[in-house]
Amino acid sequence: MAKFIDVHSGFVGATAEQLHEAHQRDLAIEESEAVHFEHAWLDPVSGKAFCLSSGPSKEAVLRVHEKAGHPTTEIYEVPVEVE
Amino acid sequence: MAKFIDVHSGFVGATAEQLHEAHQRDLAIEESEAVHFEHAWLDPVSGKAFCLSSGPSKEAVLRVHEKAGHPTTEIYEVPVEVE
Repeated sequence: MAKFIDVHSGFVGATAEQLHEAHQRDLAIEESEAVHFEHAWLDPVSGKAFCLSSGPSKEAVLRVHEKAGHPTTEIYEVPVEVE
Repeated sequence: MAKFIDVHSGFVGATAEQLHEAHQRDLAIEESEAVHFEHAWLDPVSGKAFCLSSGPSKEAVLRVHEKAGHPTTEIYEVPVEVE
């Protein structure tokens, strides 16, 4: 399964609870698109949020975010990673 | 320790080996700035690379990248995360 990082820019001032709720909405929908959101990080000052996911395509990942009410268009497939 | 995601935009066509080498150069320097690079992801098509790190400040993280030869200015503190 491919891995993706997508970037949201609208979470200025968002709280941990709001990120948790947004993430839960993704998790509730993701199965229908064979996507899994593994991790999300938020910078409430700039409003940027970064989501790490796996799935069949960029489009599938973006559809889950759209149905969950926090659409974005900025997404990258990340086939290479290091730890 | 604070957590950060920094973004590079110059890795178009980079290979897994090149990302590994760049990451190793960070790891070799990071201790001097009390920074730790935990994970990095690369999209060789767009050239974007995302680095997850912990450290005392954005500036410390950016200094390690600069000394390692792959400077960037795009960095976000990410105090909130979900899994």
